[in-house]
Amino acid sequence: MRRLINDPYDVVEEMLEGFCKAHSKYVHLYENDGRVVVSNLAPVKGKVGIIIGGGSGHEPLFLGYVGENFADAAVIGNINTSPSPESCYNAVKAVDAGKGCLYLYGNYAGDVMNFDMGAEMAAEEGIRVETVRVTDDVCSSKNIEDRRGVAGDFFVFKVAGAKAAMGADLDEVKAAAEKANANTRSMGVALSSATHPATGKPIFEMEEGDMEIGMGIHGEPGVRRDKLQKADKVVEEIMSYIIPDLPFITGDEVAVLVNSLGSTPLMDLHICYRKVAMILEEKGIKIYRSFVGPYATTMDMIGMSITLMKLDDELKQLLDYPCSTPYFTIK
Amino acid sequence: MRRLINDPYDVVEEMLEGFCKAHSKYVHLYENDGRVVVSNLAPVKGKVGIIIGGGSGHEPLFLGYVGENFADAAVIGNINTSPSPESCYNAVKAVDAGKGCLYLYGNYAGDVMNFDMGAEMAAEEGIRVETVRVTDDVCSSKNIEDRRGVAGDFFVFKVAGAKAAMGADLDEVKAAAEKANANTRSMGVALSSATHPATGKPIFEMEEGDMEIGMGIHGEPGVRRDKLQKADKVVEEIMSYIIPDLPFITGDEVAVLVNSLGSTPLMDLHICYRKVAMILEEKGIKIYRSFVGPYATTMDMIGMSITLMKLDDELKQLLDYPCSTPYFTIK
Repeated sequence: MRRLINDPYDVVEEMLEGFCKAHSKYVHLYENDGRVVVSNLAPVKGKVGIIIGGGSGHEPLFLGYVGENFADAAVIGNINTSPSPESCYNAVKAVDAGKGCLYLYGNYAGDVMNFDMGAEMAAEEGIRVETVRVTDDVCSSKNIEDRRGVAGDFFVFKVAGAKAAMGADLDEVKAAAEKANANTRSMGVALSSATHPATGKPIFEMEEGDMEIGMGIHGEPGVRRDKLQKADKVVEEIMSYIIPDLPFITGDEVAVLVNSLGSTPLMDLHICYRKVAMILEEKGIKIYRSFVGPYATTMDMIGMSITLMKLDDELKQLLDYPCSTPYFTIK
Repeated sequence: MRRLINDPYDVVEEMLEGFCKAHSKYVHLYENDGRVVVSNLAPVKGKVGIIIGGGSGHEPLFLGYVGENFADAAVIGNINTSPSPESCYNAVKAVDAGKGCLYLYGNYAGDVMNFDMGAEMAAEEGIRVETVRVTDDVCSSKNIEDRRGVAGDFFVFKVAGAKAAMGADLDEVKAAAEKANANTRSMGVALSSATHPATGKPIFEMEEGDMEIGMGIHGEPGVRRDKLQKADKVVEEIMSYIIPDLPFITGDEVAVLVNSLGSTPLMDLHICYRKVAMILEEKGIKIYRSFVGPYATTMDMIGMSITLMKLDDELKQLLDYPCSTPYFTIK
């Protein structure tokens, strides 16, 4: 094992303690629930509460995006495990300012069940909570509503956070998040597993020199496993799934995210980005704004994912809207 | 090999092409030299030019910090190799606005030689270039002026960038950078080597389960190699070198950087940060501001470093000064 931890069963609590100390300018743990990271500004008067969350191990997702004009709270589960229904509910209590709250998370069965229970508990107290589940992983199902959420989370959360910050009501914020999700497609490649801190072992087996195209961020099976190819070939294959899926067509404008799954150097990500940009240029698809780095990881997994979001004027404005959080700031 | 690249001899050029496309809002390649990344705002009228640089493989250092109110240009070498004297000189030509330029880089023999030659070439044209070499790595030598520069680069560059942005003259900017460097101490631990893209092999050998305390960012030997300890133990040992070195004492205020060497998850970095904060609290040293993440890496090396900078009012103001670059923004 090559992880810097103490007791493997304390990793989430110790991470949260360190995180809230390091970024105390932005966030704190909710006094009633140590698994809810709350913005120091929340509840923000006149603003819909934006609540994101899911299992740990994907940092900076989710807690890194709590702050000004982005998420008001993140609900924290154990590694690759949904947060509890109580924590989902407590996040509502922590951030609701009377305009209701929006839950945003990747579409996984455990998260769906527990966030839904949190919303029911809030409803019993008369607080309206709506939900948008991110379903950007093109190879996880043919049915869009069954797809998993991966790095596209970042775009959907950013858009919803900005819409809420602009004073929109819950229906409007939900509609913006739904549009962002409908316009977003992702796919990844893994070159290694990740190390589970509790076992000290990989969460699945993968030979050095292999790659798995389409693997999910918890190690869910992809479309095929093969010997590692050159970066340009890998990018071509991934783009050949993403582009026809929406489809993205000539004349479209897109935001691009080339995301590290954890241990892929920025050097390699930019080599991949170069090919993404070449393919989009060839197809007459214009890049409006790009993001390259670790946005949604699987701890120390080697690999990367590509996300495209088709933009209109509203989505451009929301993507560009200033925000300030521990792991993402626009001036 | 688990790297996503094409031809291993093209990695730097392809990275730069991808980087300047992805972050075209901030930077471009200098028209006369493809190894100089220039801010779109440079030359900035009435401002000292801030030029940083060194070998590739430490991204987001150096090029990720080129932009508004930070560095005006980064000079790019091959992997773990100094940039050429011509490129150091060309960076001056690209950013000088008549107030002179400051070279800032980690103290390595190749960089010293080549940046010095660049400064001489500029002097021949009547452009004044001063230099501050970062020497923050406490275990690299007993003599401070012989020490290497590691993640403390980030603090020294940030301070100098802000001082220049505030309109200070070259002597004042140099004095601020020198103060930042004099007040900064770092030390790291490596849990693995990094993969050199040209050979596909580790740049040095390291058994899984070992750690090397004090290793440099190019794999320079540290103070000792041992079996990997728990995070708290590792942090205690590193802090036992850093704190007495300046020394940092009760009543001091510091900035803290817990830096990933490339493949260490944010989870682990925050677990380490937690212990750093506990040790500082015990000693009555106040944390003013903290940074946790990949700021100065060695490609895919597993490990982390801790940096402390002792602050006064001027350094606080400069550290907090707004800036906007591809990999670091303060709103």
